[in-house]
Amino acid sequence: MIFCRKMPNVVMTAHPSNGGTVTQVDSIQHLPSPPHPPTVDGASESGHDVEVVKERTPQGGEWLLSGIICINILMLGCALVSSSAFNVVAITPVHRQIFLITLLVLTMLWMLFYMVVTSRKDRAVLFKDRHAGPVWLKAGLVLFGLLSFLMDIFKIATYVGYLHCDSPVKVAYPIVQTYFLWFHSRDCVQLHTSLTRCGLTLTLSTNLVVWMAAVTEESIHQTEITHLNISMKVTNYGAKKCTCSHMACETFKEAFYYLYPFNIEYSLFASAMTYIMWKNVGRIVEHHKHYKFNFYVKDVFVGPVAGLLLVVAGLVTFVLYKINILKEDKDKRNKALLIHFIMNIVIVSLMSLSTMIGCIIYRLDRREYVSDKNPTRSLDVGLLVASSLGQFIISYFSLVATVATGAQGYLNVLNLAWAVVLVVEIGLQNYFIIEGLHREPINVMPANARAFQDHAEMANDVEGQISRYSISKKPSWKRRVLREVCAFLLLANIILWIMPAFGARPQFDHSAEIYFYNYTMWNAIVNIGLPFGIFYRMHAVASLFEVYLRD
Amino acid sequence: MIFCRKMPNVVMTAHPSNGGTVTQVDSIQHLPSPPHPPTVDGASESGHDVEVVKERTPQGGEWLLSGIICINILMLGCALVSSSAFNVVAITPVHRQIFLITLLVLTMLWMLFYMVVTSRKDRAVLFKDRHAGPVWLKAGLVLFGLLSFLMDIFKIATYVGYLHCDSPVKVAYPIVQTYFLWFHSRDCVQLHTSLTRCGLTLTLSTNLVVWMAAVTEESIHQTEITHLNISMKVTNYGAKKCTCSHMACETFKEAFYYLYPFNIEYSLFASAMTYIMWKNVGRIVEHHKHYKFNFYVKDVFVGPVAGLLLVVAGLVTFVLYKINILKEDKDKRNKALLIHFIMNIVIVSLMSLSTMIGCIIYRLDRREYVSDKNPTRSLDVGLLVASSLGQFIISYFSLVATVATGAQGYLNVLNLAWAVVLVVEIGLQNYFIIEGLHREPINVMPANARAFQDHAEMANDVEGQISRYSISKKPSWKRRVLREVCAFLLLANIILWIMPAFGARPQFDHSAEIYFYNYTMWNAIVNIGLPFGIFYRMHAVASLFEVYLRD
Repeated sequence: MIFCRKMPNVVMTAHPSNGGTVTQVDSIQHLPSPPHPPTVDGASESGHDVEVVKERTPQGGEWLLSGIICINILMLGCALVSSSAFNVVAITPVHRQIFLITLLVLTMLWMLFYMVVTSRKDRAVLFKDRHAGPVWLKAGLVLFGLLSFLMDIFKIATYVGYLHCDSPVKVAYPIVQTYFLWFHSRDCVQLHTSLTRCGLTLTLSTNLVVWMAAVTEESIHQTEITHLNISMKVTNYGAKKCTCSHMACETFKEAFYYLYPFNIEYSLFASAMTYIMWKNVGRIVEHHKHYKFNFYVKDVFVGPVAGLLLVVAGLVTFVLYKINILKEDKDKRNKALLIHFIMNIVIVSLMSLSTMIGCIIYRLDRREYVSDKNPTRSLDVGLLVASSLGQFIISYFSLVATVATGAQGYLNVLNLAWAVVLVVEIGLQNYFIIEGLHREPINVMPANARAFQDHAEMANDVEGQISRYSISKKPSWKRRVLREVCAFLLLANIILWIMPAFGARPQFDHSAEIYFYNYTMWNAIVNIGLPFGIFYRMHAVASLFEVYLRD
Repeated sequence: MIFCRKMPNVVMTAHPSNGGTVTQVDSIQHLPSPPHPPTVDGASESGHDVEVVKERTPQGGEWLLSGIICINILMLGCALVSSSAFNVVAITPVHRQIFLITLLVLTMLWMLFYMVVTSRKDRAVLFKDRHAGPVWLKAGLVLFGLLSFLMDIFKIATYVGYLHCDSPVKVAYPIVQTYFLWFHSRDCVQLHTSLTRCGLTLTLSTNLVVWMAAVTEESIHQTEITHLNISMKVTNYGAKKCTCSHMACETFKEAFYYLYPFNIEYSLFASAMTYIMWKNVGRIVEHHKHYKFNFYVKDVFVGPVAGLLLVVAGLVTFVLYKINILKEDKDKRNKALLIHFIMNIVIVSLMSLSTMIGCIIYRLDRREYVSDKNPTRSLDVGLLVASSLGQFIISYFSLVATVATGAQGYLNVLNLAWAVVLVVEIGLQNYFIIEGLHREPINVMPANARAFQDHAEMANDVEGQISRYSISKKPSWKRRVLREVCAFLLLANIILWIMPAFGARPQFDHSAEIYFYNYTMWNAIVNIGLPFGIFYRMHAVASLFEVYLRD
């Protein structure tokens, strides 16, 4: 009867959250009681569990229904947003506005319902997913939410008196949503699951439609600045019906266009968190061993110091770049670009080098891979890889454009070098982070070592395995180097985040790609790719921190 | 010790194919021997198993490496293909050609290596995934492979003497790849796993790049036909350096442009199969219970007959459409469109209606959900939903365009109605199929009923469950209706496949959307969306057949 104690765990982890849940929950029902009492705030007696299960049995296709809703809203949003961009006569910004506001109102109504009714119920949230809603995501959400709020205020101030151009609903949305996600992003909802799933996909698709609208608006705006003169701009799209009604207009406009990138980031952050919540609906969280990582810095020195130097140097060149790039003098602008390119190449090359060292050490260090199934980690890895595609695509388009035009002039050569090194760096860094997240932490007894001990009666050569663990437990030079690498990469990613997030756009200041592709296309590529790239840097910082703690 | 017999299964299914495999295999090692002998051709002694495991331990990140390769090729391909479309001066078709041919040659070399070396080795393929490479996929692959082969022949005949325009390598590729996938699509490779994974992602990305190139070429071609006159066409893109060298040119050209859609489908099919193979590398297949479905038609009558009538009616109107749409007379063209629209609306409405009946019966019929984890089924569902997005996006863009222009004239009204009904039908059908695939088959003892019997000693209320199964086992009216619905939908999907696959393009014959969006954009939407839509219909037919057998 050795395995009887382990059995429920195995069954529970087999299907994290899909149609299969029903069966898995059914079989749990027949077992006396879970071996690890779930970590719950509020009623967790097993009597309640059974009731919840019974209630949920008939709703197997709820995740399907919510998915269909999500797809439909997204497709309709996509069609509306692109036609309002391509055909201003038939679909005016007003139509798009109405669609967006309907979505926002519905989403907020559901959020309020969830916060006031569902989450207050006794058995609504039996489990919390401690991996969901990490600090960096929440902090980012609040920061970007605040800036989005500011943007909406500026927008309303600009178009005051023109209610159809922008509406107060948009101001309320970031507040309600940030509040909602701050307090509920870890919930594994067990009640009203159908409604909650549909509400969450509604929120997800609203955020993605807002994101699409912002990206399109920003692209059109940037095309206008460069291509059309001021008189054209006023009569053209967007401004056509929403003319400014007072004096301080241009200032407000400038301000809110500066805030656009933050709004784009905000939508991405909220989407990621909503998606995690959706995955967690009806999920039964296993009582994970929470590794107590000890965070101490005394072992590492070279990495943090080098990283800090890099951050300072990066900040200095970034400020110089921002000052000089706006100057009239073309020589000064070119010099600013030159400095920016060189600094970036230096940073990225150093990062590639240190990541390579880290990867080699992983090869030498034959630690075990973690064996437990962890949906949040899979999602983390998925998000990391997906968001890196944004930077990848910009770099490859740059690369093709520069090579095809022959890379004449030092700026083109530097641009080419930057693109190549970035591709190498992101590839290596992804490898390093994913490898690190999948290794057993060094400083704790590995999760499956216990399992091996349970098996010990049947297996013969377990001792070898156990002794291997004890060897890897002592802090070795490998571990120190890995920590140095992590610390360095972490700081380097921060400076690579700061530069584009606060407005460095060498992609538009350097004109090679603009001439090569036409303007609209390059605009679309950068405006879709760059926000993902920025998200990637933040996500990489968080993941590297986790790898640091594990090593 | 009741559970000891079940244990290995559970551990084995926990992690289908990722970094975790190593650990899971480790723990299997300590158990005496698999309870179900694997279904293998060739050496399957357990001694071999252990050796394989030992060999594979250090290569945990191989799937990561292959993923990075795939992303890089795809991004580079994407950049090259789009710049060769947008900037013909710097990136000529010749550059793109060189890139493509390099990829094709590398892929073929790897395929030959795999077929000659890897797969011949003793312990290379210990398991076969019986769910992979179903008949419909293989048959489609051969059909479309043949047509792609023909297309390449025509292309070469057109550009004879201009080797840089098209190369014999392209002719060899469909042959080698079809042969490779026909014989090896079910392999779960255990040897040279690093190389095999990388080779498979190379194949995958080659197919996707070929797909992108074909879609772009076809879009540009279609824009040319409609917008530019013949004299422009010869001097423009593609034909610029690759002028035709003999008399039969126009005929050949016409022929190969007809075959483009099949080539696009071919790339999608090959990509799907390669992806499944990649997921299966290093996978240890559990000995699934192979349900013996009995296929008999005597129960059903209404569904097949109605479906056949629909197919015949559809074929007749399709032929009429194809004849009349090419006529000079505008009235005849409009009549052809009218008939086509009405026929499609009738088909799709009937489908929606019957799917709705099916969904209601699923609600009434409280059968259990399947509990085993099955990667091929998850992939099937994923492909179904993803490919349906193609049709969704076309319909939504149509819908927005028609509504925005006010839907004047009967053709516009019909177009609008068609778009709406299609969206409803696809949503319902996806729901119906996914629900059907996740239910326990009626005519066999459900997979987890045995497990329940094993638990019987600990649980008290199992008898109720068992008796519930026995009730649902007898063929009821519900089951008959479900089979009727499946048969009808199956045939209806076939006619909806035939029409676009053999060249019905009302999207271009009816000009509302072309005027609303600009021509290039509508072209891109249809040319990306429609091949996925066609793939969706074929996939739906296959899935409905499976649902039919289960019910």
